[in-house]
Amino acid sequence: MHANDQTSVSRAQDGPPAARILTFQRHPAQYKHWQLVVEAPLATLTMAVDPLEGAIGTYELKLNSYDIGVDIELADAIRRVRFEHPEVRCVVISSAIEGTFCAGANIRMLAGASHSHKVNFCKFTNETRLEMEEASAQSGLAFLAAINGACSGGGYELAMACDHILLVDDRASAVSLPEVALLGVLPGTGGLTRLTDKRHVRRDLADVFATRAEGVRGAEALAMGLVDELARPSEFAAAVSRRALALAATSHRTSEIEPVELAPLSRAVSGSSISYEFVDATLDRTGRTVSVTIRADSQPQWALTTARELDDLLCHLRFNEPELGTLLLRTVGDPALVLAADATLTEGAPTNEQRETALLWKRVLSRLDLTARTIFAVVEPGSCFVGLLAELALAADRSYMLDGLFEDHEEPLPPATFMLTATNLGPMPMANNLTRLQSRFWGRDEDLVAAEGAVGKALSAEQAMALGLVTAAPDDLDWDDEIRLAVEERAGFSPDALTGMEANHRFAGPETMATKIFARLSAWQNWIFIRPNASGPEGALRLYGTGTRPEYNTERT
Amino acid sequence: MHANDQTSVSRAQDGPPAARILTFQRHPAQYKHWQLVVEAPLATLTMAVDPLEGAIGTYELKLNSYDIGVDIELADAIRRVRFEHPEVRCVVISSAIEGTFCAGANIRMLAGASHSHKVNFCKFTNETRLEMEEASAQSGLAFLAAINGACSGGGYELAMACDHILLVDDRASAVSLPEVALLGVLPGTGGLTRLTDKRHVRRDLADVFATRAEGVRGAEALAMGLVDELARPSEFAAAVSRRALALAATSHRTSEIEPVELAPLSRAVSGSSISYEFVDATLDRTGRTVSVTIRADSQPQWALTTARELDDLLCHLRFNEPELGTLLLRTVGDPALVLAADATLTEGAPTNEQRETALLWKRVLSRLDLTARTIFAVVEPGSCFVGLLAELALAADRSYMLDGLFEDHEEPLPPATFMLTATNLGPMPMANNLTRLQSRFWGRDEDLVAAEGAVGKALSAEQAMALGLVTAAPDDLDWDDEIRLAVEERAGFSPDALTGMEANHRFAGPETMATKIFARLSAWQNWIFIRPNASGPEGALRLYGTGTRPEYNTERT
Repeated sequence: MHANDQTSVSRAQDGPPAARILTFQRHPAQYKHWQLVVEAPLATLTMAVDPLEGAIGTYELKLNSYDIGVDIELADAIRRVRFEHPEVRCVVISSAIEGTFCAGANIRMLAGASHSHKVNFCKFTNETRLEMEEASAQSGLAFLAAINGACSGGGYELAMACDHILLVDDRASAVSLPEVALLGVLPGTGGLTRLTDKRHVRRDLADVFATRAEGVRGAEALAMGLVDELARPSEFAAAVSRRALALAATSHRTSEIEPVELAPLSRAVSGSSISYEFVDATLDRTGRTVSVTIRADSQPQWALTTARELDDLLCHLRFNEPELGTLLLRTVGDPALVLAADATLTEGAPTNEQRETALLWKRVLSRLDLTARTIFAVVEPGSCFVGLLAELALAADRSYMLDGLFEDHEEPLPPATFMLTATNLGPMPMANNLTRLQSRFWGRDEDLVAAEGAVGKALSAEQAMALGLVTAAPDDLDWDDEIRLAVEERAGFSPDALTGMEANHRFAGPETMATKIFARLSAWQNWIFIRPNASGPEGALRLYGTGTRPEYNTERT
Repeated sequence: MHANDQTSVSRAQDGPPAARILTFQRHPAQYKHWQLVVEAPLATLTMAVDPLEGAIGTYELKLNSYDIGVDIELADAIRRVRFEHPEVRCVVISSAIEGTFCAGANIRMLAGASHSHKVNFCKFTNETRLEMEEASAQSGLAFLAAINGACSGGGYELAMACDHILLVDDRASAVSLPEVALLGVLPGTGGLTRLTDKRHVRRDLADVFATRAEGVRGAEALAMGLVDELARPSEFAAAVSRRALALAATSHRTSEIEPVELAPLSRAVSGSSISYEFVDATLDRTGRTVSVTIRADSQPQWALTTARELDDLLCHLRFNEPELGTLLLRTVGDPALVLAADATLTEGAPTNEQRETALLWKRVLSRLDLTARTIFAVVEPGSCFVGLLAELALAADRSYMLDGLFEDHEEPLPPATFMLTATNLGPMPMANNLTRLQSRFWGRDEDLVAAEGAVGKALSAEQAMALGLVTAAPDDLDWDDEIRLAVEERAGFSPDALTGMEANHRFAGPETMATKIFARLSAWQNWIFIRPNASGPEGALRLYGTGTRPEYNTERT
């Protein structure tokens, strides 16, 4: 949240900002809101949000409040450290503003944003924080929140995503979650879940904290478990440095240091297509469908580049193409090329590049699972749904595999094969911490064993059907009609009902902090965001900063 | 769903029905929609919904479609079997209508109901189905769904709550979840969760099934795992009987047969109070608060009657008093009386009455956890928050315990004590399958051990604070102000944000099918119910049966 300023009239109060195309490629040299300084074994990521550089409107990003543009840079910086700075073992997140750490998501931005933008903004920021926690757990990259001033809402949620929270003890700086009390919404970036499930704050104290707009300072914050350490202002810098080095010393990051540059992606966009080096998307606005094709290649960085391209495409579709409700996933190329790339990710002791590439695939596949669009995999002759790319089919809501050849092609492509590898058995868990195979065969252990037993076998459509790895296997005669009807049918359903149904079906079995964040907290927030109490003309989000109190509809559900 | 009938014009299409006070006490002799026939070891519960006896409007309940009134009778029947018919070991659920099992929730009812009613209707029906599953797991009471005809939506969800689904194989009768395809909403009674997590239907087949309005029949339903058994029409009755007796034979229900009559509750309602034998509620409409007081007593059935009264009160408040957002829970009386009742529930080999009374308390406490109202426990001198009643304080979002005496009372009541017993350590798990103490101290094992170590000790406010069992312990000087300010503050917050926040904080740690149903599926449904695509004038719920197709806003979130 940022301070109220009556002199700054934001267009957001008058209606949603004009649609702008959001892009997701960034480079530290062009960051507008963050400074990344690497001094091994530390990297310091300093938040210095430019108030005049809002990404989707004319609101002012005061007091390190943020919008999607700020978070896209943060996500980029974390990936840079993971790939380009393997010598780093601890990332310090701090603020360049005296007395302010971060004011959280910008309220005028939220008040003016469309429902779809709000939900996707929260989803993206959540994914970035989960990537921080993954980097900590799996890459040995610890995160230290160095809170040198007021830290509220999303600012405190960012801190909670770190391994250690150091708060300046200056009798003024507080951590707070003022969303419920002041804005009539929930902390949308995992705040409530991390309070109880990560930081183990007792639920009644969590209730007190999350309804106290002014937050909690110093010793009380430490006693409640909201922060891990305090330092006086005069000792703050030294304490940050000492703690960061201590965290770095506990890192298990491998010592070899071969940086991998994240080169700019090649990307061509037209009205109806988006083309990358290995990923193409064709947009059918009438049918509200996107056809995505991934091409196998022998290029050494194929797996890394493809993951980055797919990630960029998913973000683009989420934010810029909300009406395209169905993704059709296809692959083309020689399965042997994919198997070769796949093997480097799981065999032997991985290099930093291999480990980070595998973790990036894990994250991108998770982004796919959490994308609120129908996903159908289309497994045709000439395709390469093997290993890493088979995981795309397992992420789909349905998969169609052609049984045989396209008979009327002059030189028919080879029949589709489906092959599982070690990649499908562990390194790419979903948010529920199960593999996609475990999730698929939840409660059917024999089917799971049979499918896992097929690792390394090139499966025909008939075999894949028998193992339950694909949903349907029509032959050439029925193929076009079956796909077309399924896609048309989907386009006729309520997008809301589909979003809710898919979010339920995709995650069988146990839950984790991540599924709670996405499936429970986000679902509630989704509801709250659309209620007049938050987003109506007299709602708390819209009235925030005007001096007028919202009049709530007081019915409880 | 019921069949379309253009000749029946329902008032529900023109707006919400006039507010009616719903009551929750029923007796089999007065059932309007079910027939309960007991022939030990079986009970047969036959659905024969009276189309003209809708509970909240003028819609017609055709084809065994149901509304809250139908489900209240179902819930009553299950409790009757549990308490009044201990000789029963299997309940057969069947239909009196030739060719129709159950058409699910009535669509015109849903189209006309308020958002709050829709959400609470779904919550109540879910609780009833979970009670069936509890009776099966813990009371040895198996449930058999004898599906003799079309079984759609909530009808199939009712079947999925049973232990065994027997479907007539007549080439016509299908099971189906047509909500997504026809109504733009989700199956709201656990359908999606039970498909994958209970029946282990593969997620892509679940996707196909839950988008196929016409459903699945016979052998295909059996192959997909949607039903457990098929029987031809001529053999259906014999198959039901054989299967019911086989299920009864596996029951572990104890053989002693002492029925416990569920006598009518004594209940007096005025504009500002509801009084039962042991439970009183005072309604403060200005402050939007309900003060609930439970009185200890030596009456032998005190625990059973109190649970029934509290349950009735919670249902009353949910449906009839949506604006009263905060519950203040108080107890009065001699703690020794509560301890005596408490001991009978957990000590030694329980009788059927003791076991069922404990299970009823478990269910009522779960109903409290899932009630979308703020819950504060107020622990004052003269109170008896011990054992069973201490569980109420542990269910609260916050608990306030007075430290000392009310000094200015002429004959001050004894200082409040708080005491844990064996009842707090296991028999009353929450929906997340943790005790409220485990949930409270999630991730803080030492605190949990310390609290559990205090079993049997009468704790002062200071001691309860030190153990983290209460939130705050003001003294007499601060008491009134602190309670008043907390209550007033709560009344000023957005009810939506509070509902979302409390639903998150109450369930730390792992998730179960039940928490997924309530926290994930219901949260999505909550959102979908309020979106114009479902509930707007052109939404699918409102247009269902008119012949006009809804025009959806196609934006995906």
